[in-house]
Amino acid sequence: MSILEDTLGAIETSDAEAARIAALRLDSLTKPRSSLGYLEEIVRQYAAVRHDPEAASGRGTIAVFVADHGIAEAGISAYPKAVTVEMLRNIGAGGAAISVLARFFGYELIVTDVGVETDTSTTPFTGVRYRRVAAGTRNFLEGPAMTNAQVRHAIEIGIETARDAAAGGTTLLGIGEMGIANSTPAAAILAAVTGIEPARIAGRGTGVDDRALARKVEVIETALRLHRAALGDGLSMLAAIGGLEIAAMAGACLGAAAARVLVVVDGFIATAAAAAAERIRPGLREHMIFGHRSAEGGHTLALHAMGVRAILDLDMRLGEGSGAALAMSVIQAALALYHEMATFESAGVSEKIE
Amino acid sequence: MSILEDTLGAIETSDAEAARIAALRLDSLTKPRSSLGYLEEIVRQYAAVRHDPEAASGRGTIAVFVADHGIAEAGISAYPKAVTVEMLRNIGAGGAAISVLARFFGYELIVTDVGVETDTSTTPFTGVRYRRVAAGTRNFLEGPAMTNAQVRHAIEIGIETARDAAAGGTTLLGIGEMGIANSTPAAAILAAVTGIEPARIAGRGTGVDDRALARKVEVIETALRLHRAALGDGLSMLAAIGGLEIAAMAGACLGAAAARVLVVVDGFIATAAAAAAERIRPGLREHMIFGHRSAEGGHTLALHAMGVRAILDLDMRLGEGSGAALAMSVIQAALALYHEMATFESAGVSEKIE
Repeated sequence: MSILEDTLGAIETSDAEAARIAALRLDSLTKPRSSLGYLEEIVRQYAAVRHDPEAASGRGTIAVFVADHGIAEAGISAYPKAVTVEMLRNIGAGGAAISVLARFFGYELIVTDVGVETDTSTTPFTGVRYRRVAAGTRNFLEGPAMTNAQVRHAIEIGIETARDAAAGGTTLLGIGEMGIANSTPAAAILAAVTGIEPARIAGRGTGVDDRALARKVEVIETALRLHRAALGDGLSMLAAIGGLEIAAMAGACLGAAAARVLVVVDGFIATAAAAAAERIRPGLREHMIFGHRSAEGGHTLALHAMGVRAILDLDMRLGEGSGAALAMSVIQAALALYHEMATFESAGVSEKIE
Repeated sequence: MSILEDTLGAIETSDAEAARIAALRLDSLTKPRSSLGYLEEIVRQYAAVRHDPEAASGRGTIAVFVADHGIAEAGISAYPKAVTVEMLRNIGAGGAAISVLARFFGYELIVTDVGVETDTSTTPFTGVRYRRVAAGTRNFLEGPAMTNAQVRHAIEIGIETARDAAAGGTTLLGIGEMGIANSTPAAAILAAVTGIEPARIAGRGTGVDDRALARKVEVIETALRLHRAALGDGLSMLAAIGGLEIAAMAGACLGAAAARVLVVVDGFIATAAAAAAERIRPGLREHMIFGHRSAEGGHTLALHAMGVRAILDLDMRLGEGSGAALAMSVIQAALALYHEMATFESAGVSEKIE
């Protein structure tokens, strides 16, 4: 069996009994019942995913996958393609938003080149791992973005990233990305998975004007028609209209679930990866939490269609895992409350009048 | 002149030029323009309040004020009045939600008894300051909750708390509270200030049933009629229908503004204090930021009426400064991004295609 099939076989249903025990303990803490709101749901989900009613804290890690996109040729991005490799260097060197946030919150940051056009592996950038599947994807208006072998390879890189992080003590894995033009494949995937029209899903990405946005919608509509036969299956959908970093993030979702690690999905593009992973392994959603509601395009619609809630809503639209990083701090604070708050009994606080 | 008048005289308009310089720097950082969303607005507001285009970080402090309420006699709370002093001890001892959050995020926690019914100052609790104005307020169905002297005293305690914190290096001050029954005076204040009907503002507080909620609305309606003449002025409104901890929080808002410290307002009850402070000193709002949208009653309506946005929306309804504490971590992360991200120039990243 391959790594992918092994991983799919290892994913269990999350542990409802652990969530139930956590709920009981939450009700014993010195606060009005349910008054920590969504933080309590976060603790219950973490306990269930970890199969651990104690919901013990572990290391927080952010995995950022970086790749280029053939579809950038279609003129649907506000920045030149060279920015991908420039930002790969910047993220590794500590100057990008995600670099700052990981440092600020004390997370490990794993930056992986899974397919940047410019190959820098021979004189490698500081802080970057090289797991290059290809020098970017092909333009999916001219055929599938990737071969089946490539998409599988990219997914397996994501799986191994999550597995290695789990082995190192990570219990919370944020996933993020960088790749010029990648909001186009992401919007195509979300349109394919949710059935929402491309015009309502696609957004301005890093800031395109009206004309480029119209072109982007047209590109997505054309791609969905062209690749219709491939869209019913998660793997072939990713191969047809996905991206290498998107496939790697989908793999990280699968690998984390198999290792009982809670995945914290970043914004628009990471959500497309999560949706693809859910299509590969239905039910995976219970192992994932959505870090923030992005201001990009129809992210709100997509989250709604997937039946999930986001932790934060800060009008961010940066990617890189930046929203996941902020959300992970909320999750870790929720766990600290769960572990460290006094109970009514231990603190000698009177309970509710019944 | 009194401390209050001195403080009102010392509050300046926030510094639009500092905000403008911060906006320019934000646009130079390696991210699509405005892609950090609300985080960018936070940085600009912080720079303006601090009169510091560098937006230098400082210490984060949470000030929690605790007091009892005569109106608790009216049977509008789900917990017995004894819980106030029990929670005062618990907060000081480190077992309450805010104690855990302050520790987790590394904030200083200042807990002040400004008027708990049970006087514990002779055998003081660990971690509690005693600045007792009275042994709780009077029942405001039978007359004003406080005398003018009491409300002024409570406000000045808040001012001094903020001033001392600023002198110790605090640049970010979260305000929170604890006091059984205090969602009733808070709802009365918010109804008085916004004009929204009590039935739409009042909520279940720590969890009352339908009957107690109906009683609570009736109490507020009666109080607003009884004290109508006092409601036009911030001080007399607080004296009539406020609380000692609410007045102290209003004072902290004023004192922080005078000391160029950004105030992070917690949820429903802290918002009532902020609204009262705004009534005392119109325009104060620009010095304050709202930490979270509480699930309590009409908090969303009140924020909307005040024309402000909240940083977080996590369905919390606990008070104590818990929402402010979480929001302060978002603010500090935003400042870290501002200080530490590379610029397009320094990182050699290409700019947008124009």
